[in-house]
Amino acid sequence: MTVELISVGTEILLGNIVNTNAAYLAEKCAALGLSCYHQSVVGDNEQRLEDAIRLALSRSDIVILGGGLGPTKDDLTKEITAKVFEKGLYEDAHTKARITEYFRQVRSSSVTENNWKQALVPEGARVIDNDNGTAPGLILEENRKTAILLPGPPNEMKPMFDRDIAPYLNSLQPEGIYSKMVKVCSVGESRAETMILDLLEQQSNPTIAPYAKTGEVHLRVTARAADEEQAEILMKPVMEELSRRFGDKIYTTREEVTLEEAVVELLKERRFTLTTAESCTGGLLAGRIMNVAGASSVYREGYITYANEAKEKLLGVKRSTLDSYGAVSRETAHEMAEGAANAANADAALSVTGIAGPDGGTVEKPVGLVYIGCCVKGKVRTEEFYLTGNRQKNRDNAVVRALTLLREELLKI
Amino acid sequence: MTVELISVGTEILLGNIVNTNAAYLAEKCAALGLSCYHQSVVGDNEQRLEDAIRLALSRSDIVILGGGLGPTKDDLTKEITAKVFEKGLYEDAHTKARITEYFRQVRSSSVTENNWKQALVPEGARVIDNDNGTAPGLILEENRKTAILLPGPPNEMKPMFDRDIAPYLNSLQPEGIYSKMVKVCSVGESRAETMILDLLEQQSNPTIAPYAKTGEVHLRVTARAADEEQAEILMKPVMEELSRRFGDKIYTTREEVTLEEAVVELLKERRFTLTTAESCTGGLLAGRIMNVAGASSVYREGYITYANEAKEKLLGVKRSTLDSYGAVSRETAHEMAEGAANAANADAALSVTGIAGPDGGTVEKPVGLVYIGCCVKGKVRTEEFYLTGNRQKNRDNAVVRALTLLREELLKI
Repeated sequence: MTVELISVGTEILLGNIVNTNAAYLAEKCAALGLSCYHQSVVGDNEQRLEDAIRLALSRSDIVILGGGLGPTKDDLTKEITAKVFEKGLYEDAHTKARITEYFRQVRSSSVTENNWKQALVPEGARVIDNDNGTAPGLILEENRKTAILLPGPPNEMKPMFDRDIAPYLNSLQPEGIYSKMVKVCSVGESRAETMILDLLEQQSNPTIAPYAKTGEVHLRVTARAADEEQAEILMKPVMEELSRRFGDKIYTTREEVTLEEAVVELLKERRFTLTTAESCTGGLLAGRIMNVAGASSVYREGYITYANEAKEKLLGVKRSTLDSYGAVSRETAHEMAEGAANAANADAALSVTGIAGPDGGTVEKPVGLVYIGCCVKGKVRTEEFYLTGNRQKNRDNAVVRALTLLREELLKI
Repeated sequence: MTVELISVGTEILLGNIVNTNAAYLAEKCAALGLSCYHQSVVGDNEQRLEDAIRLALSRSDIVILGGGLGPTKDDLTKEITAKVFEKGLYEDAHTKARITEYFRQVRSSSVTENNWKQALVPEGARVIDNDNGTAPGLILEENRKTAILLPGPPNEMKPMFDRDIAPYLNSLQPEGIYSKMVKVCSVGESRAETMILDLLEQQSNPTIAPYAKTGEVHLRVTARAADEEQAEILMKPVMEELSRRFGDKIYTTREEVTLEEAVVELLKERRFTLTTAESCTGGLLAGRIMNVAGASSVYREGYITYANEAKEKLLGVKRSTLDSYGAVSRETAHEMAEGAANAANADAALSVTGIAGPDGGTVEKPVGLVYIGCCVKGKVRTEEFYLTGNRQKNRDNAVVRALTLLREELLKI
């Protein structure tokens, strides 16, 4: 089946916001086995919105519209979709009650008059409750064509899609589509593809689709089956084969788990604390670890040591090391990691020192050269990387390399 | 005149990448006074790409196509556009020479066979040199319709658009569109709008368009004029009026300058050094400052102090302060900033302590409560903020508030 996305919003047309919702929905629809050949963006304009909906319905089975469900008179998505489907609008008592309740509980206020517009529902539409806002989702079906209307704010749209829309989309298909995620680190994209080339070439059901991410590869295993149980049976040997081939390079098989979460989890299991000593990444590594809710149980303090004096003072890096090998060297990374572990009295420490660019590179030490040190229980391992990107990219990449290195060392314990 | 964007790429349809190029181009086109009513995404498919181009040309004056100019046979944008314009392709000697040179200089290798495809150019097309890759940009004009083809990689597309496409688009219009940017901090979006409500209501030429960013407001002043000189004359009184109203809340009038760059510049002017002591932001503030190339001249070291013990040990925050007021308090933020300045022997210090969420909030200290301390030359100012967002948003927001606070204090000196 084919699906098409229409994002409604002048702020996207003006470039005020980046359309991250479309990427989210596109990836989820692909995972559900739906083919997406078109995405489009239109503003809050009656005629253009109507044209866009008619065009989309003429060429795709399912049209997902995002945005334009707000309470103002500029918000037209529901009204125009109802018009295209030749349906009237009625006030839905259930939705009205939910809106009243939402205002009472969340906003501690009573409903403003224009919010009642959000309780209007097209005849025959299925109403999808919105737990994080006042605009319900809507599903309209007619002549084997489906329109799905979702609220624009990502924090309302995403949970609604995952909980209600994804199962609904699956129910439309003769066979359901079920997928699992295998997230791999410590191996590059092309190497990962080579390792499963035979699987990629033979595959029919289930299929494996590799996605390259910064320093990671995500493999999506997708099966078509009558039900979830059948899908599990089909996917099991593939999951096992991937597990055999990638071993502990697989850091999670859960869709929502990030690399930093997996690393924090390993630290928690071992009851280890972690510290960081950063030069070129300047706090980004710590910032990423600390974005894990509950990281405070493993991370207590960290150091940003840009200047050589700071490396000496805070981490005890030897002046002679800095003089002999330079700040960007394997030796300095080693002493930074060791010194950070000691200074913070932590079980593990990561250090990063490198040349992020755009300036500061030399022939011997070019922009992109990064050394990462990892100290776990007094044992230090250092790695050298030649990254290729701009300043921001090199720093992001270094952060992932550091997390990966720590993970490898933790798995040895 | 109307412009329409078509992004070509299966990776966008599959949700592998977020379409940031579209947002970039949309904002730039809006700044050039072009009306954009449609954006769309299609894959590397002959028929669908042709349909998309024909539809776009039927309803818009200018169609900007991004992506699909690569060397593989999947890359079809140029071929299909030439077909729609009924033009043949010929090998452009100038582009061929540039490709050869690019491979020699940048890749230190000779050209691979399929790269010659990138030297093929539609008859009558204007060729736009690509300084950062091998695919040139192309402009085709016919019957008052224009197609502009741009390479997909942002680091190739953006400089090409700014240098060559923007002036070209201006030349198409009876009057040129010229704009200036005024970036404002220390004032919220609605307050900023209120401050210029009379200007926004009266405006015709030039116009002022406010854009809300995290903790900042950007005001774009746009004039229609015969040439740049005339535009300058038109914009001058408006720029002066904005300057009168916002005063030193304007941190830059240069398009490309970020808040952190403006702050680093102020520090450099004063020959001040800066340090940071972060709790809930956990390195993000330092990371953002350090993303300024050349930040090393003002920033030498910084501290991440998540645990109370770290605040005591590294920053000298008093145990009694933590016990009496808690880690998230004005008093702790004060001592953190003061202590960081002392520990790093820095002229200025920023501290951040707060509850980023999702857990850890209480009735008295809810999620989103953040205290920021700023110490400049021994004088400390603290501010309290109640932020509303998820963990990531609260942390990003706190970083901007901290930079703004430092800027305000630096301007007093």
